[in-house]
Amino acid sequence: MSEQVRLTLEEVRGLTHDTLRANGLSAAHADAITEVITAAERDECKSHGLFRLPGYIASVRSGKVRPDAVPTVEVLAPSVVRVDGGGGYAPLAFRTGLPHLVERARSQGLAALVMNHIFNFQALWPEAETLASQGLVAFVYTSSFSYVAPAGGTKPLFGTNPMAFGWPRAGHPPLVFDQASSVSARGEIQIHLRDGKQIPEGWAIDPDGKPTTDPAAALAGAQLGFGGYKGASIALMVELLAGALIGDLFGFETTERDNGDGGAPAGGELVIAIDPARCVKGGDRAGQLAHAEQLFARILEQPGTRLPSERRYRARERTPTEGIVIPRSLHDEIVSLRGS
Amino acid sequence: MSEQVRLTLEEVRGLTHDTLRANGLSAAHADAITEVITAAERDECKSHGLFRLPGYIASVRSGKVRPDAVPTVEVLAPSVVRVDGGGGYAPLAFRTGLPHLVERARSQGLAALVMNHIFNFQALWPEAETLASQGLVAFVYTSSFSYVAPAGGTKPLFGTNPMAFGWPRAGHPPLVFDQASSVSARGEIQIHLRDGKQIPEGWAIDPDGKPTTDPAAALAGAQLGFGGYKGASIALMVELLAGALIGDLFGFETTERDNGDGGAPAGGELVIAIDPARCVKGGDRAGQLAHAEQLFARILEQPGTRLPSERRYRARERTPTEGIVIPRSLHDEIVSLRGS
Repeated sequence: MSEQVRLTLEEVRGLTHDTLRANGLSAAHADAITEVITAAERDECKSHGLFRLPGYIASVRSGKVRPDAVPTVEVLAPSVVRVDGGGGYAPLAFRTGLPHLVERARSQGLAALVMNHIFNFQALWPEAETLASQGLVAFVYTSSFSYVAPAGGTKPLFGTNPMAFGWPRAGHPPLVFDQASSVSARGEIQIHLRDGKQIPEGWAIDPDGKPTTDPAAALAGAQLGFGGYKGASIALMVELLAGALIGDLFGFETTERDNGDGGAPAGGELVIAIDPARCVKGGDRAGQLAHAEQLFARILEQPGTRLPSERRYRARERTPTEGIVIPRSLHDEIVSLRGS
Repeated sequence: MSEQVRLTLEEVRGLTHDTLRANGLSAAHADAITEVITAAERDECKSHGLFRLPGYIASVRSGKVRPDAVPTVEVLAPSVVRVDGGGGYAPLAFRTGLPHLVERARSQGLAALVMNHIFNFQALWPEAETLASQGLVAFVYTSSFSYVAPAGGTKPLFGTNPMAFGWPRAGHPPLVFDQASSVSARGEIQIHLRDGKQIPEGWAIDPDGKPTTDPAAALAGAQLGFGGYKGASIALMVELLAGALIGDLFGFETTERDNGDGGAPAGGELVIAIDPARCVKGGDRAGQLAHAEQLFARILEQPGTRLPSERRYRARERTPTEGIVIPRSLHDEIVSLRGS
């Protein structure tokens, strides 16, 4: 029997939605989570695809995450909208806040969406892409469990603290990057462990603070910021933006309060959206986007380069016809979570 | 005769101001530039101190920078203020836009200051610190001459593209970092060349795209983004924010248009300021800042750590009494630029 299972994107969508609904997620939450998981599989971002589904379920079964939370919106300032996620997952909170953020970014020039009382288990690039698809420049910040040592330190304190950035393009899908402040995503180390592979040097230190290539020792020790102290500065910035700035948790608080169910971290999220047309005299969105294309052309004329997100977009061309592949063990686990 | 000259901060201030005025800078520009140069010397950030003064003068003498430009302010959107620097140096443009940015960040929750038609030769941390000293969270972005290869590429395209971040603290000066998107500052490679030293691996590639530790080959080749492709992504983001988003130049355009006078690069600057009190329900600035102090305490309890900007603040305690030291050759050059 093959060790892998091939699924169409429609099968991914159906399996995900059914499993979420069978475990008590409201239709609205199931829709929003299904969208981000399917998008991840479609773009071959395996660490945020079906791989995450058992964790989503675990945190509902443990009672940590509310499966039927109804996010609420309030305006904190002319350029700041807040969504209280009510203790549910983030994708529905983002979906709820999105139209308010877009409207205010356009009317005010830039605007922020503060999301509190949520659990983040999804990648950030879909949110940056969604905003950039509507013509806005987007920044997305969130923290996570404390996994990353501060600069000069040896113990985990910061989350892997991803930040995503989106730039709208005329005639192309947006330019988007979504990168952890750590050298590698947590999920990459977990996948190395699952597959019995060593991790590259420089990703992490063991519990004694020594460099390690053993994924188990890395998971027990601390991950490192990318590029040394500079990446650690970015991680610190993200802690402040997704924590104290918006009245939400730091990574270490998330870890200390967690019930250990193996699922999603609690924590806040900050999204900032800017309307390019409001940032130049006379507003010239087409001209601004055309100007950016000149930069992209200069990048791509150098052999060996590609734009951030290009790999995802190439996968996106393939997977609707080729489908996607996951380990049979994961497929079996999800089917058992779904029930008959 | 000593190879070095010791000056009090008042002497730095007087020498700088006199030299700028003697070279035709208006009183307003001389005041603003003197403040940033003196602040850099006070904090022992030598690469942005008196070391820069000959460059400031060179670009006025060459006719590239207007010494008497009068920045003008206009409101582009409720949360976006623009300053047209009129072809002058950035510090006066920032000073001109500052009260408008602060007022709108407080009234709108967050706001952006777009600065066009300026020349940036100063560090960004003083601007982030100024905003954070007024209780605001600050982001500052600007580009520079094209020195850095895109991810996977071998030819210089991006600027070293610094970004600064400021966080207000209660009872402490703000937490601020200001870091280039390249592994090293340009000046560090130049200093290695001057001193006949090899540069560390990973800083740069030679004109053939091969890794090099030869500083001359590095300067002829391209610098690399910090942390590999992730730092290059940050550099790309800064190009877009300080270029196409605000209708200003990319690094490669700055390089192509420059007159080679050895002075400041033309280019735009984007500053974003957020009022923490407008980002939480009910507004609780004191509580938010106290929360952040809990994170800083967790960082500092780990041996070997320090907060960004601590080294500058320690220098700031020393230099008002001890003064600062510069090479005699630099002092002589400045005195000659000042004239009798």
